[in-house]
Amino acid sequence: MRKLYVIGIGAGDPDQVTVQAIKAMRQVEVFFVIGKGADKQELVDVRTAILTEHVEGDYRIVEIADPPRDRMPADYQRVVQDWHDRRCTLLEAAFAQVDGVGGILVWGDPSLYDSTLRIVERVLERGAQSFDYEVIPGVTSAQSLAARHRTVLHRIGEPVHITTGRRLREDGLGPGSNLVMLDGDCAFTEIPGADLHIWWGAYLGMPDETLIEGPLREVEDEIVRRRGELRAAKGWIMDIYLLRAGT
Amino acid sequence: MRKLYVIGIGAGDPDQVTVQAIKAMRQVEVFFVIGKGADKQELVDVRTAILTEHVEGDYRIVEIADPPRDRMPADYQRVVQDWHDRRCTLLEAAFAQVDGVGGILVWGDPSLYDSTLRIVERVLERGAQSFDYEVIPGVTSAQSLAARHRTVLHRIGEPVHITTGRRLREDGLGPGSNLVMLDGDCAFTEIPGADLHIWWGAYLGMPDETLIEGPLREVEDEIVRRRGELRAAKGWIMDIYLLRAGT
Repeated sequence: MRKLYVIGIGAGDPDQVTVQAIKAMRQVEVFFVIGKGADKQELVDVRTAILTEHVEGDYRIVEIADPPRDRMPADYQRVVQDWHDRRCTLLEAAFAQVDGVGGILVWGDPSLYDSTLRIVERVLERGAQSFDYEVIPGVTSAQSLAARHRTVLHRIGEPVHITTGRRLREDGLGPGSNLVMLDGDCAFTEIPGADLHIWWGAYLGMPDETLIEGPLREVEDEIVRRRGELRAAKGWIMDIYLLRAGT
Repeated sequence: MRKLYVIGIGAGDPDQVTVQAIKAMRQVEVFFVIGKGADKQELVDVRTAILTEHVEGDYRIVEIADPPRDRMPADYQRVVQDWHDRRCTLLEAAFAQVDGVGGILVWGDPSLYDSTLRIVERVLERGAQSFDYEVIPGVTSAQSLAARHRTVLHRIGEPVHITTGRRLREDGLGPGSNLVMLDGDCAFTEIPGADLHIWWGAYLGMPDETLIEGPLREVEDEIVRRRGELRAAKGWIMDIYLLRAGT
């Protein structure tokens, strides 16, 4: 493989793709798709819609099955590292089959809670494969959430703390406004505080987009209930929220 | 005015605009441009390039002069509030001249350190103007910085703290990786620590894009020097950096 593009394609709306991403995709001969379960058919459809609408000519899609992973490990860092290693071995083998330009499409942007860049760097470090690579930035779900709620992420001049549900549960609120990703268990219900405000969004930019906003203690039960219903109905959920003391 | 689009157009590369943004721009009859100095002609050119390439047909551009602002105020919040009020009055008058669809183009994304949404909300609160409005998210300079350095913004599972140069100077480093925007005075030079690493970028996505990365104590003088030279040569600078203990 001569070159690899790692391309951010936005948070779920096919129109969130950039012109830069489209131009990169048009150069790609083989797209590597890492680990999509059949239950996320809707996400596969968004990706297909982007490629069908914007890329003419021949390209191949090579699916790489995701190795199994312990989702509630005792040693989080270690389990994630092992999992990256196994994905790395699979990607290395797939890259070896390509002569020209490869591409990996990433939901949102590759810089936030996505393992693609770490895996690509590890493949290069191993030394069996050598190629140039370029990262095309994308709109993140953080930007999508703010846009759909028509809000700025912070108060004037204050910081934004981007974290995970796991961290929020362990460390509590960080300074300023807290933007929480990868929260499978509604960690916001465990954060004390009478004056917290939440801006929550699920399936942003997709047909089932759901937004709830309000004082946390007033709307948290509704979010937990709606989140459970949506997840049960669709088999999966992608959500994100902004949490802040005061409004 | 019937409807207003607030549109994020990316961090400086005209190709960073999204398909969603292009579709919104094509509906706009009047673009309101707030306060561009003549010295930032390059930014005006990027905006013009985006409109010329993607929008056919008639549109008008109405420039709204930026009211003067104290850049080093004693009471920061108060001065910014006053400044927003004065911009608000000017925008209100401009909106009153439009019948159909208006648009405001925002560098990066409207959710991060940009005052457009606050001003639009304030215009609506005043009640003299009434219109629907929609926010189109864009790629931020944070995503651009990470992409150009081909890095993730954080270590596995750790948080990202987005802040300003002013806050970094006052509060020191926040938890996790620190992404610093609006730093006119190289606040990183005042942050103690032997093991800090920096990923710096200026004019991201533009012809003069400049990237410097390395251990902070080894590269900080070079960044200060290059930043000064670039700013002097061009008359303005837009830069951002990521700062983290360890690598």
